[in-house]
Amino acid sequence: MDRLQQQFAFLQEADKLKEVTRQTYLADGSRKENDAEHSWHLALMALLLQEYANEEIDALKTVAMVLLHDMVEIDAGDTFAYDTEGLKTQAQREEKAARRLFPILPDDQAERCYALWREFEDGETPEARFAHAMDNLQPIMLGAASGGKGWVEHQVTLSQVLRRNAHTGEGSKVLWNYARKTFLGPHLEQGHIGNDCR
Amino acid sequence: MDRLQQQFAFLQEADKLKEVTRQTYLADGSRKENDAEHSWHLALMALLLQEYANEEIDALKTVAMVLLHDMVEIDAGDTFAYDTEGLKTQAQREEKAARRLFPILPDDQAERCYALWREFEDGETPEARFAHAMDNLQPIMLGAASGGKGWVEHQVTLSQVLRRNAHTGEGSKVLWNYARKTFLGPHLEQGHIGNDCR
Repeated sequence: MDRLQQQFAFLQEADKLKEVTRQTYLADGSRKENDAEHSWHLALMALLLQEYANEEIDALKTVAMVLLHDMVEIDAGDTFAYDTEGLKTQAQREEKAARRLFPILPDDQAERCYALWREFEDGETPEARFAHAMDNLQPIMLGAASGGKGWVEHQVTLSQVLRRNAHTGEGSKVLWNYARKTFLGPHLEQGHIGNDCR
Repeated sequence: MDRLQQQFAFLQEADKLKEVTRQTYLADGSRKENDAEHSWHLALMALLLQEYANEEIDALKTVAMVLLHDMVEIDAGDTFAYDTEGLKTQAQREEKAARRLFPILPDDQAERCYALWREFEDGETPEARFAHAMDNLQPIMLGAASGGKGWVEHQVTLSQVLRRNAHTGEGSKVLWNYARKTFLGPHLEQGHIGNDCR
């Protein structure tokens, strides 16, 4: 199969990301968003908020990482941040998906994309830490905008949010502090997020 | 208003792009895609197909351009490629939208984003030419994948497609030739695109 055919086969397969629904509502609460929309939103955030990264980051690498980071969910599905059972098998399901999906590309690009996805998962570089911060902050921003709809629906508690965001501040202290105060604070006060940390 | 507040106000406003529907069907034909999904898909294409640009391009600039290029449609709506009436007022509607939307950002970012959008619209740099090629090729790729569904629905003809793509080859000769042969050819033969160029 020729190089261009492989590249377009991957780009066509990628279209399926538009049909993977997440648990996050749009800002206006009208429906839940999908992985492709989410990935676009993260890329825009990474571009516009990179000045707040704790460490210097390569913007292109970070954007590429967030554009690709959810691709594995085409096979593995979206695992909700607070789904304890799903989280147990998530890594294994996603690794399997990565090993099917990226090799649709020509070898050199398959390797680069797999490595970028793996780097995101491992979370041990400045770019991966910042990308994770975007991935965690975007649903918090939308959660607040939608009046806490998703948090109420899933009866999310503060300890769950804090556990989920244990490493968000490692990507950006500034953004994590801002999100706690501006996005989480009011919804905790209003009881949209259950306060189990008193 | 402080800098972070302005940045998050823009990122929240940007969420509305997920609700601007285009005329392009997903690859599986199940529904039409929206602008946010489309923008994500273009960014992925720009990353993976940059080797075929006629001229050397700055990948980060190109990706930023496609991530932002449709933002004006939050106010101006999507103008279908073959909507003759809509196309007459498109530039004016979009300029007005750009002048409302980008200034939600802090001044420095508002200027950079407006300039990037303007550069895309003017189509006179290597990045803008390649970004336009992505913007034109993506619906052709999906049109072919969905069995020509959108072309049939709108009774699109070959002369319309060629006029629409008059400059696609200026971004990438290789990709435009490939798309003509691989994506358009079979659907022209099958009559999904009307042949008015015999």
